[in-house]
Amino acid sequence: MEHEKNALAKGTWLSYRSEIKVLDCTVRDGGLINNHMFEDGFVQAVYDCCVEAGIDYMELGYKGSQKIFARDEYGTWKHCPEDDIRRIVGDNPTDLKLSAMADAERTDYHTDILPKEQSVLDMIRVATYIHQIPVALDMINDANDKGYETTVNLMAVSAIQERELAEALETLARSEVGTIYLVDSFGSLYSEQIRDMTLNYLKAVEGTGKQIGVHMHNNQQLAYANTVEGLIVGANRLDATINGMGRGAGNCPLELLIAFLKNPKFRLRPVLKCISEHFIPLLKSRQMEWGYMLPYLVTGMLNQHPRAAMKWRAGDTPDDFVGFYDQVVEEE
Amino acid sequence: MEHEKNALAKGTWLSYRSEIKVLDCTVRDGGLINNHMFEDGFVQAVYDCCVEAGIDYMELGYKGSQKIFARDEYGTWKHCPEDDIRRIVGDNPTDLKLSAMADAERTDYHTDILPKEQSVLDMIRVATYIHQIPVALDMINDANDKGYETTVNLMAVSAIQERELAEALETLARSEVGTIYLVDSFGSLYSEQIRDMTLNYLKAVEGTGKQIGVHMHNNQQLAYANTVEGLIVGANRLDATINGMGRGAGNCPLELLIAFLKNPKFRLRPVLKCISEHFIPLLKSRQMEWGYMLPYLVTGMLNQHPRAAMKWRAGDTPDDFVGFYDQVVEEE
Repeated sequence: MEHEKNALAKGTWLSYRSEIKVLDCTVRDGGLINNHMFEDGFVQAVYDCCVEAGIDYMELGYKGSQKIFARDEYGTWKHCPEDDIRRIVGDNPTDLKLSAMADAERTDYHTDILPKEQSVLDMIRVATYIHQIPVALDMINDANDKGYETTVNLMAVSAIQERELAEALETLARSEVGTIYLVDSFGSLYSEQIRDMTLNYLKAVEGTGKQIGVHMHNNQQLAYANTVEGLIVGANRLDATINGMGRGAGNCPLELLIAFLKNPKFRLRPVLKCISEHFIPLLKSRQMEWGYMLPYLVTGMLNQHPRAAMKWRAGDTPDDFVGFYDQVVEEE
Repeated sequence: MEHEKNALAKGTWLSYRSEIKVLDCTVRDGGLINNHMFEDGFVQAVYDCCVEAGIDYMELGYKGSQKIFARDEYGTWKHCPEDDIRRIVGDNPTDLKLSAMADAERTDYHTDILPKEQSVLDMIRVATYIHQIPVALDMINDANDKGYETTVNLMAVSAIQERELAEALETLARSEVGTIYLVDSFGSLYSEQIRDMTLNYLKAVEGTGKQIGVHMHNNQQLAYANTVEGLIVGANRLDATINGMGRGAGNCPLELLIAFLKNPKFRLRPVLKCISEHFIPLLKSRQMEWGYMLPYLVTGMLNQHPRAAMKWRAGDTPDDFVGFYDQVVEEE
């Protein structure tokens, strides 16, 4: 946090850290709710919002393998073909940088990720579970060689043993990746854990020039608090989504983060406008559901993937929280 | 937080602080949404839930003056007559203690608060703005003399100058009150501020045997995170409400707090059940609205009382967040 004295805090109340970059991953993470079947108008609205709000990066979706994710079962933003991106952003004549996520083992990166000079994308974010790191490293090299900025998003960190995490961070710190993300996939981490882990990540990349990022989920209403906790101690890359849209309990709400950050380049008003015009109607239509709900609290507190909770919410008795609790506790 | 090493933290991962007491103020704070017009069945359900969940205190409502708050305009729980309380709780043959809140200058405390031996209430919580402290002190003495446990809830602390707060805490530390509450009335405080302020409050009562409590609001999705922050550094009295029900953006959700606390006396399942059966139907009926919404973020970030946001939500264009933002910023 930027406005109170703290032994660990970087920055002061009236200053801000210009190194802090905010990445909007609304379409990418929100697309996990609807198989990325967004209408162009929605993606355009998010893009325009990010440009007006002074956001640093917008993530448009995944570079998913078409062999694994069939074109007729998933929307455009599961694959992010270059032509489709340009249909929305043209040549992107703005300060907003664009990214796509590439899942380890689920991306045909050699063919589907074009050389940077042929693409309007600026950054490739490689998402990996710890056992996929060798593949992820090859993907990072590929993207780096093609001319992109790169990040690696090491998922489900709350399920990784400390010693293995240390080894993974060492390996990633030696790679060509630009940023390593602390990812609370299960929304199970408390603020003090985020503080300690962020400091661990920072220590691992000391002297390498790499940045640390945080990507939080809202299963226990801590996505925003944990993002702030990470930035206080030195994470400079912050993921957020408009209105917190994202799989299950969703993500750190962009509007809260913008309201908190002191850098005058960030503007709250366009985000409020975009939510009124595009997100509230989506929620009211019940086409998509996201945000804190009790099944997510249950999986979060048990350090489990939220998939069981998502399935319950899509079932016949979504508000029978005791039924869900009993099922999950029994299966534990 | 009880499970990570921290220079300031009290307790460890596998232990818990048995001094921590949780107070449910669902009916009292939630009643600010509907003029305390709850049906008996609802209040009974909250009471039963608190008993089953191992909650320490339940706050039933206000001891509001009948001259200021007419009996025909407000529900039972604005006044909490002894007979009405007993209609729900009988002689309260449980471990759950009961409290009522008494607002400074809005309570006929000499007449309306009975001697403890005539009441099933255990505790009187005096709510006061800083300029009302002299009245509050008289109310604390009155309640103390009548045989009650007492707390003082110093409201709107984010709008108090540091020097005045120090003086207020000194005065309250010399009083007979049992617990002093840090109250984030505007939901505007960030976790680091809560940490520093809780430590200030603790320092003020050092050696007096008094406890510090925290009462947080969710305008910026920080009610739970801030409650945890307060308890990490030593606040032992924690306010929460079922499903976060409370005025405006609501409060720290009891279910999150119960899921976090390690004391085995607390049980999550009854809270989940109560939410499914009583709170979700209320929300769906649209009879009552509470929880994080963008107008509350706007007043929270501006350190304003949420009343303008509540009025906007009750108006013709509740989802026009830009309209609200423009109005509030212009009036700043």
